[in-house]
Amino acid sequence: MEVHSKIVDLLNKVREEKPLVHQITNYVTVNDCANITLALGASPVMADDILEVSDMVSIASALVINIGTLNSNTVASMILAGKKANELNIPVILDPVGVGATKYRLETAKKILNEVKVAVIRGNLSEIKTLYGMEGRTKGVDTVEEVSSQSNNFEEVKLMAKSFAKGINSTIAITGMIDIITDGENLYTVENGHSTMAKVTGTGCMCTALIGSFLATSKDSLLASLAGVTAMGIAGEIAFENLSKTYGGTGSLKVGILDGIYNLNKEIILRRCKINEE
Amino acid sequence: MEVHSKIVDLLNKVREEKPLVHQITNYVTVNDCANITLALGASPVMADDILEVSDMVSIASALVINIGTLNSNTVASMILAGKKANELNIPVILDPVGVGATKYRLETAKKILNEVKVAVIRGNLSEIKTLYGMEGRTKGVDTVEEVSSQSNNFEEVKLMAKSFAKGINSTIAITGMIDIITDGENLYTVENGHSTMAKVTGTGCMCTALIGSFLATSKDSLLASLAGVTAMGIAGEIAFENLSKTYGGTGSLKVGILDGIYNLNKEIILRRCKINEE
Amino acid sequence: MEVHSKIVDLLNKVREEKPLVHQITNYVTVNDCANITLALGASPVMADDILEVSDMVSIASALVINIGTLNSNTVASMILAGKKANELNIPVILDPVGVGATKYRLETAKKILNEVKVAVIRGNLSEIKTLYGMEGRTKGVDTVEEVSSQSNNFEEVKLMAKSFAKGINSTIAITGMIDIITDGENLYTVENGHSTMAKVTGTGCMCTALIGSFLATSKDSLLASLAGVTAMGIAGEIAFENLSKTYGGTGSLKVGILDGIYNLNKEIILRRCKINEE
Repeated sequence: MEVHSKIVDLLNKVREEKPLVHQITNYVTVNDCANITLALGASPVMADDILEVSDMVSIASALVINIGTLNSNTVASMILAGKKANELNIPVILDPVGVGATKYRLETAKKILNEVKVAVIRGNLSEIKTLYGMEGRTKGVDTVEEVSSQSNNFEEVKLMAKSFAKGINSTIAITGMIDIITDGENLYTVENGHSTMAKVTGTGCMCTALIGSFLATSKDSLLASLAGVTAMGIAGEIAFENLSKTYGGTGSLKVGILDGIYNLNKEIILRRCKINEE
Repeated sequence: MEVHSKIVDLLNKVREEKPLVHQITNYVTVNDCANITLALGASPVMADDILEVSDMVSIASALVINIGTLNSNTVASMILAGKKANELNIPVILDPVGVGATKYRLETAKKILNEVKVAVIRGNLSEIKTLYGMEGRTKGVDTVEEVSSQSNNFEEVKLMAKSFAKGINSTIAITGMIDIITDGENLYTVENGHSTMAKVTGTGCMCTALIGSFLATSKDSLLASLAGVTAMGIAGEIAFENLSKTYGGTGSLKVGILDGIYNLNKEIILRRCKINEE
Repeated sequence: MEVHSKIVDLLNKVREEKPLVHQITNYVTVNDCANITLALGASPVMADDILEVSDMVSIASALVINIGTLNSNTVASMILAGKKANELNIPVILDPVGVGATKYRLETAKKILNEVKVAVIRGNLSEIKTLYGMEGRTKGVDTVEEVSSQSNNFEEVKLMAKSFAKGINSTIAITGMIDIITDGENLYTVENGHSTMAKVTGTGCMCTALIGSFLATSKDSLLASLAGVTAMGIAGEIAFENLSKTYGGTGSLKVGILDGIYNLNKEIILRRCKINEE
């Protein structure tokens, strides 16, 4: 079966199963993450207190860990929930938001990766390079580096992603102008999306929530990541196309992205998805 | 006077008095709760630190306690503020978000109910059943149980609600496909709303904020609850009707719900409200 | 060069430089603050843990401190980050949300002002009067006092603002029906905006985020404040004009404000801005 059709099937399965996705995430984009999880068809629950995360993750089908506004309380909860998820064979996805911006973020991300087996890491190019140990340039939570299929470093970035994925035995999803998803063996690139999405906070976090939702339904981390990245890109380009030419902007774009995920279906996916397998 | 007209009068009174509604709530839906409070005509203030909740509740006309993302700091603040509210005769409403999902939530909700006299509890069917002590099935913060006027358990649920309300001498509001509001003596059902509202996070929390706003203006807990539930349902159905047929979704639905509350008026309430008194 | 043209130039410079704006802010309006910062063309980063705020502010070009949902952890972070910003000559802007509502808020705001040199304070009239030491009446985070160019106390308020600005050697921006911006010597009033903006939570916080973004690009605090206040007012009036007459409300208004900032340009600023220099 072609990968496009597998994504369609997985979307239908999410909508049928409505899996619970436990998210320990940041307070900046948490509402959008919950809403995009619901728009896709899954069921989000945000809970971060040490006294309940073990219980919560135990009834969930996937765990999203997002370090966007980490603090000592939530970091302890992330690790406890992550270990519990590992114990119960519940897949974990890590979003290392702004990992290169401060020592605390980098140490925390490394600590999580040391103590918790993650199925997927999704980040922008700066974040993934930093985690891999290459010198990444960082500006807060936004990437300052991009890669495109025409750029000189395209091959180098793909090799890095594969090497990182193989090294930690996880799927790596780098999102940006061109998205790169690899489990260390297979590698896909996705060219959906629109550059204006970077002007809405949390499009990365929302993409991670989508991957988490797909992961809650399929243990195939590579497919779940590809599905999440493609869904986000398609929703973003539809939202951009629907913007009012006279006064549409990034406020409307965010609303349109949620609408786009809610309306996603087989016909739209098959017509729009721009996935290349290497 | 008919209950429809009483709701209209209460709405007008809220807009005239602009009461301050102190909300100790979760960080997932807090922005929507503040905005819906303002859209109705009241004035929200969100504050949860133990060092200021006593002062804050003292200048407020109602207190909303929502355990959606509880932690040990905020739980202490909820109880302190709740006791202060009781002392000052300021009505308190509790939203036991996801109370069945973890032991910590259930213990916290019980602790609040033991230490604070609440005027109203609003939850979905799973949450209210759990609080009442019946075995409720739970999936995070979403209900897995529903009741409709055609369902077998409709009578049983109404009895449970009445018994719970009588037992704790509070108004119980169960929201879902059909809403049930009772003070233990009188019972109303409301059939406004649209099922797609469940795909927007925080429609329950927002309903609680609306009830809190009405409660800030009227000590009649039953009427305030009925007004909040009906307002939310009407806003939701208007928002759904106004969705673009081609690309409208849950992003637009949330925006439309806030617009609907802002535009709510006598004519709309009298034409649309579907309240039955039993 | 006229002040209108200076604002246009500063906007273009923000979009060119995309400065990083570190914001320690409240969880009610944080998403909107991040999105409006991006919509203007700057890059927001929200981080409040004591273990990382020093590192974060060190790579930023401005620091926004907003006490909307303060607690003992974040207050310590605000002061640490503020001192670091002072050390590195990074401008700081304070938003004293609801400062008159509780003793804790007032003490905190005073502590911040004692320990951190702020370039700008932006608040509503109640907040600024409270901070200045005049008796301000307060209702939570909303002002209960307004000033207009016709009101009796207009001259008195302008004198107070000037005296406050001179006393602490900062720019004071009072936003409301008419905005007053002064560095103690020069004073501008701005009459852009629409009264319905007060029915959207966080329009004040968002204005502060805009000022912070301009401040990240220009050390001229008076100009940056004027630019932020004017941009917010213009976006608000455009958003109001674009509301659907049949079902537009405050949900759409917020979306429209973000769109308006995203679409702001030279032509719109020169045509719409209503600035008076005294």
